[in-house]
Amino acid sequence: MENLTNERLRRVQNNLVEMTGLVQVAMSCATEALLSADVHLAEQIISDDTQINEINNSIEENCLEILESQNLTPTDIRMTVASLRMSTTLERMGDLAAHVAKQARLRFPHVSVPEDLAETFAQMGDIANSIVSQTGKVIATGDLSHAVDMTKEDSEMDQIHRQLFTLVLDPDWKHGVESAIDVTLLSRYYERFADHGVTIARRVAFVVTGEAYGVSDLQGDDK
Amino acid sequence: MENLTNERLRRVQNNLVEMTGLVQVAMSCATEALLSADVHLAEQIISDDTQINEINNSIEENCLEILESQNLTPTDIRMTVASLRMSTTLERMGDLAAHVAKQARLRFPHVSVPEDLAETFAQMGDIANSIVSQTGKVIATGDLSHAVDMTKEDSEMDQIHRQLFTLVLDPDWKHGVESAIDVTLLSRYYERFADHGVTIARRVAFVVTGEAYGVSDLQGDDK
Repeated sequence: MENLTNERLRRVQNNLVEMTGLVQVAMSCATEALLSADVHLAEQIISDDTQINEINNSIEENCLEILESQNLTPTDIRMTVASLRMSTTLERMGDLAAHVAKQARLRFPHVSVPEDLAETFAQMGDIANSIVSQTGKVIATGDLSHAVDMTKEDSEMDQIHRQLFTLVLDPDWKHGVESAIDVTLLSRYYERFADHGVTIARRVAFVVTGEAYGVSDLQGDDK
Repeated sequence: MENLTNERLRRVQNNLVEMTGLVQVAMSCATEALLSADVHLAEQIISDDTQINEINNSIEENCLEILESQNLTPTDIRMTVASLRMSTTLERMGDLAAHVAKQARLRFPHVSVPEDLAETFAQMGDIANSIVSQTGKVIATGDLSHAVDMTKEDSEMDQIHRQLFTLVLDPDWKHGVESAIDVTLLSRYYERFADHGVTIARRVAFVVTGEAYGVSDLQGDDK
């Protein structure tokens, strides 16, 4: 019985790693679609989001099956509940990538962000990519040493997010209201995405160390 | 054993109802603080959010305890997992109320929304209030007939959200970039809040009817 649980938990873990990979590709392609006004790529990301949602549903079902089995240890239960939540968070990260892609599609054939901010959004895309890549490694290994850059990068993301806010509110902002709103919403999508990645690593930390929110340098905002 | 589980599940359910009440008060007061630039009320909502977070933590612990007990029925397990998720969603609704309050505080002593939109935001506040009130009744009774107005109201909220988008992007918009961004973000907070309320009712529907997403007129967006 215990072996079956372990096997099922490993399957869930593999699904989570797979989901993380898909989310990473989605956000990476969304950034590309955004900066090159590639409407076909944007469409593809939006439609591929269903794949991420399906894995989420399958993880949910598998986790409920695990919880319905007998002789679970408290650790099994905490791992299963944590997996359920990670899956929900990854699904939301997929949605955020799709939001970026929808923004790219909305302004096609124009690029949704002003040219002088293209590099900033490329940077946000890079940070998002690096964070979700670390998240995947942490899920796959349970080893938090893969997340050493995460806190620094999440702070960088927050800083860019705040800078963009200041920028669009500057009296010298030349790109109009529509662009200011686009930039604000996009910036929020990237910031949330990074934050969710950190939240997942924190959940793994909780399961591995048994300490709730004890890994102070892995604290996200979780909103 | 079964009685203890029932008792624990009832306690969790009571906590969820309590949380729903606090979230309702928070959003209602946040709207008031927003429209009257009441910084003291705003501060209070922001600090009271910790209370909502604490109930969330306590529900989490209670649900894990339930899952660790023996002889659970599949229904017990599904109810417990659904409760965990409802609690997370309610916690997020509390955060959204706090976001509105923070916006009110940020622009103090000015009112954060232009005068000609005050009524629109009052209306969003009313809809949010009505939806979360129905959510609470559905959680307390498991009776979906309390949610009859929910779908209609959620659609109204979406419609106002879209109208506000159009409005701030209109060339005739006279209130500047800062105000356009404030209105966009605030509108999103209300729209998300309503959507989360619908998501919770949908979860109750799932537990009660056993049909995933079967209650098509209770479909939210869950993002």
